[in-house]
Order: sequence, then structure tokens, then C-alpha cells
Amino acid sequence: MNALEIIAKKRDGLPLSREEIEFFIDGLMGGDIPDYQVAAWLMAVYLRDMSNEETKHLTDAMAHSGRTLDVESIAPLAVDKHSTGGVGDKTTLVVAPLVVAAGLAVAKISGRGLGFTGGTLDKLESFPGFSSQLSASAFLENLSKYRIVVNGQTPDLVPADGKLYALRNATATVGSYPLIASSIMSKKLAVGAKVIVFDVKVGKGAFMKTEDEAVKLARIMLDLAASLDKRAAAVLSDMNQPLGLAVGNALEVKEAIDTLMGHGPADFATHCLTVASQMLLLAGQAPDQEAARDRLAGLLKSGEALAQLEVLVKAQGGDPAPIANPRLLPQAPVVQDLNSPQGGYVSQLDAMVVGLTALDLGAGRVRKSDSVDHAVGVVLHKKVGDGVLEGEPLCTVHARSDEDVQRARATLLKAYEWADLPVQPPPLLYQVVR
Amino acid sequence: MNALEIIAKKRDGLPLSREEIEFFIDGLMGGDIPDYQVAAWLMAVYLRDMSNEETKHLTDAMAHSGRTLDVESIAPLAVDKHSTGGVGDKTTLVVAPLVVAAGLAVAKISGRGLGFTGGTLDKLESFPGFSSQLSASAFLENLSKYRIVVNGQTPDLVPADGKLYALRNATATVGSYPLIASSIMSKKLAVGAKVIVFDVKVGKGAFMKTEDEAVKLARIMLDLAASLDKRAAAVLSDMNQPLGLAVGNALEVKEAIDTLMGHGPADFATHCLTVASQMLLLAGQAPDQEAARDRLAGLLKSGEALAQLEVLVKAQGGDPAPIANPRLLPQAPVVQDLNSPQGGYVSQLDAMVVGLTALDLGAGRVRKSDSVDHAVGVVLHKKVGDGVLEGEPLCTVHARSDEDVQRARATLLKAYEWADLPVQPPPLLYQVVR
Repeated sequence: MNALEIIAKKRDGLPLSREEIEFFIDGLMGGDIPDYQVAAWLMAVYLRDMSNEETKHLTDAMAHSGRTLDVESIAPLAVDKHSTGGVGDKTTLVVAPLVVAAGLAVAKISGRGLGFTGGTLDKLESFPGFSSQLSASAFLENLSKYRIVVNGQTPDLVPADGKLYALRNATATVGSYPLIASSIMSKKLAVGAKVIVFDVKVGKGAFMKTEDEAVKLARIMLDLAASLDKRAAAVLSDMNQPLGLAVGNALEVKEAIDTLMGHGPADFATHCLTVASQMLLLAGQAPDQEAARDRLAGLLKSGEALAQLEVLVKAQGGDPAPIANPRLLPQAPVVQDLNSPQGGYVSQLDAMVVGLTALDLGAGRVRKSDSVDHAVGVVLHKKVGDGVLEGEPLCTVHARSDEDVQRARATLLKAYEWADLPVQPPPLLYQVVR
Repeated sequence: MNALEIIAKKRDGLPLSREEIEFFIDGLMGGDIPDYQVAAWLMAVYLRDMSNEETKHLTDAMAHSGRTLDVESIAPLAVDKHSTGGVGDKTTLVVAPLVVAAGLAVAKISGRGLGFTGGTLDKLESFPGFSSQLSASAFLENLSKYRIVVNGQTPDLVPADGKLYALRNATATVGSYPLIASSIMSKKLAVGAKVIVFDVKVGKGAFMKTEDEAVKLARIMLDLAASLDKRAAAVLSDMNQPLGLAVGNALEVKEAIDTLMGHGPADFATHCLTVASQMLLLAGQAPDQEAARDRLAGLLKSGEALAQLEVLVKAQGGDPAPIANPRLLPQAPVVQDLNSPQGGYVSQLDAMVVGLTALDLGAGRVRKSDSVDHAVGVVLHKKVGDGVLEGEPLCTVHARSDEDVQRARATLLKAYEWADLPVQPPPLLYQVVR
């Protein structure tokens, strides 16, 4: 067996055996297979695809490239969620405390994410002192004590994914379904919650632009989950416009707190209840969707869900004071409204444009080494379907300077499209795939 | 413009512009585009192909990655040939002196070749002292004085090809038509003979296994040649069994000398006349095929062609004594016949198996840094269509040791297949594509 034969086989569209895939991942990790051979193989995988069987072997080999954490024996009811990423997606901040309040456990490895705004970890780091760099033993200890951990990836966890992802990023092979699926699932396999809900975003601001693409990815991930003995479901939700109203790290934390207090934006709150009730169902902790929702809504109302956010923040060294007083979160020096230049109904609000504006304001990172400004971002006031009067505020820009505001306003205006007659907003949820 | 966008465009099957291809080759040469990005791009080119227009731009960009030699102003009748490679292919050793005797000039950059036996340069180095490392100025000086030069590639000539070829070799992308064609033609463009004959080999021992594949490659190269203002033709010839009888460097030199003296093996002599007469025709030095052949046959008979081999060897510092006395060529210490284990008609003689045997004896190189044993190889006595009695010699092995002979005999037996009734040998020439 050698790397060249394995590349040639995939190049010719032939399936790779488990042994060949293991050989390749071992060679990548051991340094025997140089980056340029891996890069050629990645492009061959992108263009020739992989069967579910191959994707499973790849996921397995990647998961075992580093250490694994035995979550299940500590927390049998541990659940996980994974979003394919979008604009204003602060779902974990609400769903994790919520399902823990319902008796489940959350053992989650989160990303920082390149892109529009920071990842879940960046958002949580809006709480002063919050650490997402727990050691493996601290991770397991917190899980056992508090039933909730949201931590960063450590270098010894699925190191093959780190290597492959860096190369995919540099070789235009990020968008391969089996590579996306194995990257996600190898981390789930290494950390090992039994139940996973995938939040697959669809639309302008998402990686998957159409429902068909999202269904395809969902099916691959669900097949993969089943073959790896996980219980999983995929929620396909809209990302044509941003989720909720806040886009930006601390701004999203505030919106998550509001939602946990029962008065978040309706679309975001509904989405969180959908994802969380799927977790309850899969974990066998609710008889049906309706019962799950009712129970979760009660936990929001009672404050029990919010209390678990406080547990999480404190358990990882953060100061929970901003939960009671969100003004303690990082604040941008310049806050200005963008008023509507016209009246009418919003017919489109391009999530991608809003996301890029937040990125330009400093909310996200272009390079891994960039730091994130937690305070900046955009808060929307009008979304698709809303009627607007000329001069009414469309959104509020939180920025570092007047210049930044000016630039953001010019871009944000391009995100909006208008209609004279009322417009139906896009559906929030396309479907749940099981 | 950036490398990632160019990779993504090719990945999606979109044509690259001249500027994008130049940017990529410049980036490769300047070190701005790392090997792994080039590797991913090569695989995308392999699987998505390139239009003739793209292949032309690639060829141009590669040719201008280093210095170019203005051959045409020194030798307006300069011609070149290029073989796609095969077993027992010593055609240049005969054709170059032959067409120079006919009044043309040959300015040829040859390879050493990885594979079964050495390349043309290795064969010529069977003459003690022969140098294929002439400087660019010595190359042009010899061309002007003797009208014949066969030299190695210098690092400043088409350096992009050297880099790309090494990566293709390591990434299973050698077999891409546009990459093959641009690799060949960039060298022809940099050195600049106006007339080129491609010798495209077809069959078991060749890169192209079928006539269809060979026609496809020939058409790409001819289109490319036309767009680069070259006159070209492609001879599609058989490589199911070895060409001629000798396989091995000095053994092939001896066969070339025999052929230049008018008593070489019929198949090889015929092939040389075909290639050489195409050169004469393209250079406008013969009215038709028949006239070209007659004239060339006369130059073999008169010894004028052989005299030009002596000119070549002397001009590049070699001792021409072996031309008159081939026993002065390197001789293997062990020479043994392989006798036929059965009687019948030879129905197959697998060129690949014979080539691999020669390689194993030491005639070729596996790695670029390997050295070649000029003395070893195989001389065939029976080829396809020949009737053989049990115990009659099938071939003679020239080896470094008895052990090597034993191993070679075992392998060579597998090269032969047998029939009870007479068998038609494969055609020597499939077609000439213009």
C-alpha cells in the first residue's frame, strides 16, 4: 500500500478500503505523506466523492488520530448539537442551558470559526474571565459536576481534522460533503455524546444555498451517525436572513439572555425550542414534540434555564454578573441607527451582507490568528415581511468609530430589498430529517 | 486574482484565462503558491481537463518560466522529434544522424527518463566521454557548426516543467492530456525547432494503451503545435511488444549502429524511415513520402547517416571508436540465452514485462538519483508471429550476475504467450496524424 496508489484509486472514482483510509490518515499524521499528496487526494475526494462506507472509515480514522473522551460513562444523557454556521446563530447559548435544565447533559466541543462573527466560544468569552481552554480532565470533571461544558478543541483531540481542515481551506476543497461530514462527526465521535442534533442552515448566509443541498448533507451525516451508533436528527432552518436580531458576539449574548428569560425574538426563540425538543425526543426524555416544547417553555418561564447559563459561565471561570445586568457586557463606543431611506415592505434581508458587515466591524476573524472585538455588530429592527416607514430605524450599528459606522451603513443598505405590497417572510424551519 | 480562486475555478470545470494561468505559473516559480495548492490544482486539471486554448496558455507560461534558445535563426531547417516513451525505443539514435545527413538540422533536448531503460542521453553516454551537459552557448555553437546536438535539459530551461513534473509524479496526475502535452510542447517552444514529429507509442508497454487514447493525445499536441506556429505530425506506432530486438542502453546503441549501416531489425529500421521521412516532408525537403524514403534509404546505404552519428558523438566529447567496433561498448559480465520451454508461435510478447526485466537488471532507474548500468539488458530473438522450436533461444540476457540472469529468465518467460497456429504480428504503424 502506498499514498500514490490510494490517490490514483480515488482519482479514478474507486472506493477506498478501511485499511487504505487508515493508512492515509496515519501517514498524514506521521508525516510520511506530504501535504501535496494530501492536497491532491482532497481534490480527488471533492470531485469523485465518497460512499457512506468510505466516509465512515474516514471519520473513524480521524476520530482515532488523537485522544478520545469517554463522556457517555460519566453522563449517559449527554447530548450535543452542531450548526453548519450562519449569521446571528447563538443557538447553543440558549439550547445548552435549556436542555440541561430539562435533565440532560451537554458535553460540547465548539469552534471559534472563521467568518462573519466569532463562534460560540467567542460569544461566551464576552463574559469576563470565561475560559474555553479546559484540559481534558477538567472537561470531564465539569461534566460530572455540572452536566454542562462548552469547551474549545484541544490539539490532542482529532488532530487529523486540524491538519485536513487547514489544507482544505487552502485548496478549495472545503465544500466536499464527505469531508464536511467526517470533519464534524469525527469530533462528535472523539468526545462521544450519544445524541446529536444537526442544525443545518439553508440560504444566502449559509454554506448550503438550497434545501436540496442541505438535505443531501443531512442524510450523509445521519447515515454516518447511525453507522457510528449515535442517535441523531437534522433540523433544516433558514439562513437567508440572519437568525434573531443581534449579530455580533456580546450583542448575541444579550439576545440569548433575553431569550432564556422568555422575551427573545420570536424566530430565534422558536428555533431554540425546535432544536432543544429534538434533543429531548432523541434522548427519550419526552413522549412527543408537543410535550417537549411545553416542558422547555416552562423551563424558560421559570428561570431554570437561565440559571444553567449562570452555572456554565461560573464553572468555566467567567463572571456571571452580565446575566443580571447585560450593560456589563463589552459595549461599543459608537452606537448609531441606520434609518430607512424609503417606506415599504422588506422583501429580502441578505444574511451574507449583514454577516460581512459585522466581520468588517471587527466581530469576526479573517485569519485564525485575528482577535475578535466582542462589542461590535449590528442589531436589526426590521426583517423580511416587516412594513417600514421612511426614516424609521432599520437597524443599529455598534462600532469602534464613526468611520466604521459610515462604511457599515453603506453596506447594510445593500442587504435590504423592498416591495410595495406585504411580503411573506421565509419559513423558519424547512424540515426535520431523521 | 489569487491561487484559491484559480483552483476553485478549475475544480468547477470553468476555463482559466491566460492571465490566471500565468499568475499560477509565476506563483509556482516565485514560491508564492505552495506545493499543496499546485497539487490540488493538478488534480483538478486531471479530472476537469483543459481546453486547447488553456493548454496553449499553460505551455506558453511554462516555456517562458526560464530562458529560451533561438534555434531557428541559427538553423532554419532545425527539426525535432519526441517519443512518448517505450521499450527498446532507440529511434533518435538513428533518425537524428539520418535527417542531418539529408540536410536538416537537429537541435534536441532529451530526457533521461524514469522507467524501463535509460533515455536517449543514457544511451548516448554508452560512448565513453560523451557529454549531454552542454551549456546554452555550447549548444548553439554545436548546432551552428555541426547541425546536430542532443543535450540534456538545463535547469534554466523550462524550470516550471521540472517543478510541475515532480509534483505530478507524486500526486498521480502524470496521465493528464493537457499536462502531458504542455510538458512536451513547452520544451519544444523554449528550444524552438520549427518542425516536430511526435512518436506516440500505443500498447502494453506504452503510456497510451489504446489507439483512441493515442489519437486524442496526438490531436491535442498537433493543435497546440499549430497554435504555437510549429509544423508537426504524429506517428502512432506499436508498443505492445518492444521496438527492434535490443532493450538496454549499450545494446540499443549497437542496434542503432547496425541500423545506420543498413542491417538493423526490419521493424525498427522501417519505423526510423517513417519518422525521418515525416521530418523531411514537414521541412519541405521531399515532394512525397516515397521520395523521402528512397532518399533516406540511400543515406543509410552510403554510410552518410552513420558518419553523422560519429559527428554527433565527437562534437559532444565522446569517443566514436565503438561505432567501428561495437565490442568497445560496455559489456555485461554474464551473458546467457533463455531457451524456449515449448514449441509453437509467439502470440504475445509483453513490452511492459520485458521493460521491467531490463529495469530490474539495472538498465533503468526508479529514482532520479539512480545511476544506470549501460551494459545490461535483453536481446530478443523471437517476436510475435515467429515460430519457435522447443529449446531454441528466445532471447539473451546481459546481466551483472548469475542471480540476476535467473531472476530475469523467470520474469521473461511470463512475457511470452503462445499459439499453435501462425499468428499475424501487430501492425508496426497505426496511422500518421497531421
